[in-house]
Amino acid sequence: MSGFEIRPATAADLPAIVAMLADDPLGARRESPADLAPYRTALDRLVADPNQHVVVAVRDGRTVGTLQLTVVPGLSRRGSTRSIIEGVRVHGDERGSGLGTLLIEWAVEESRRQGCQLVQLTSDATRVDAHRFYERLGFEPSHLGFKLQL
Amino acid sequence: MSGFEIRPATAADLPAIVAMLADDPLGARRESPADLAPYRTALDRLVADPNQHVVVAVRDGRTVGTLQLTVVPGLSRRGSTRSIIEGVRVHGDERGSGLGTLLIEWAVEESRRQGCQLVQLTSDATRVDAHRFYERLGFEPSHLGFKLQL
Repeated sequence: MSGFEIRPATAADLPAIVAMLADDPLGARRESPADLAPYRTALDRLVADPNQHVVVAVRDGRTVGTLQLTVVPGLSRRGSTRSIIEGVRVHGDERGSGLGTLLIEWAVEESRRQGCQLVQLTSDATRVDAHRFYERLGFEPSHLGFKLQL
Repeated sequence: MSGFEIRPATAADLPAIVAMLADDPLGARRESPADLAPYRTALDRLVADPNQHVVVAVRDGRTVGTLQLTVVPGLSRRGSTRSIIEGVRVHGDERGSGLGTLLIEWAVEESRRQGCQLVQLTSDATRVDAHRFYERLGFEPSHLGFKLQL
């Protein structure tokens, strides 16, 4: 597990990030790699927000992994701050390399650094391999995740 | 369903909010109504963040409901912005009054106003009545929610 650098995403990473978002059974129907404009707008907004951390993993100059970490202060649990992990993707060439673990470990460590008491994420019920992956990393599938499309 | 006002929470609402957070099978073990200091610190941080909306429902001068809405920009789904609902509580005297529905409808409407394409929330697997409530309001239990305590 050496040779990866994890750093904040920049606009130059967007083609690689969007390709990874689209290279996925669910993402294929939801993304538009041929039109990066909406992603650029979103990244500008993310970079300007101190509670947002979109990172990429880079090896040999190639952007091969990404995730988004959001820091969410709150009142419940004695005013706990939690973090939320979204958009975890690893390039097809790198699957099985341990990069997914490295990305999640980065997110957990950064959450500690930001004073979070809890890290949470949701995973589509169909992603059975992902569920095993998160359980191996110590996450408990204690909740149901509900979504409403607007 | 008249007579409720939904407005941003202030420090004066904290005793009522924390009492509601604690008056719950899970919250009873996690909250400290006798020590409001950590909640005051958290509320200051929430009020300063334009993506955070902690609101209360008030009737006849009593704070009887609360929720937290977080607006989360993102790259996936063509740069979609989503919102996350947390910390939904209704005072014991008001349960069954429709106030829970009113609060969630407020959150959905505010999410639209903020340009979100998706509203999401997680609910502890043991809260079976809450799951039925969210499904009645159109939410789909499509995901598993994972948590890691730090």
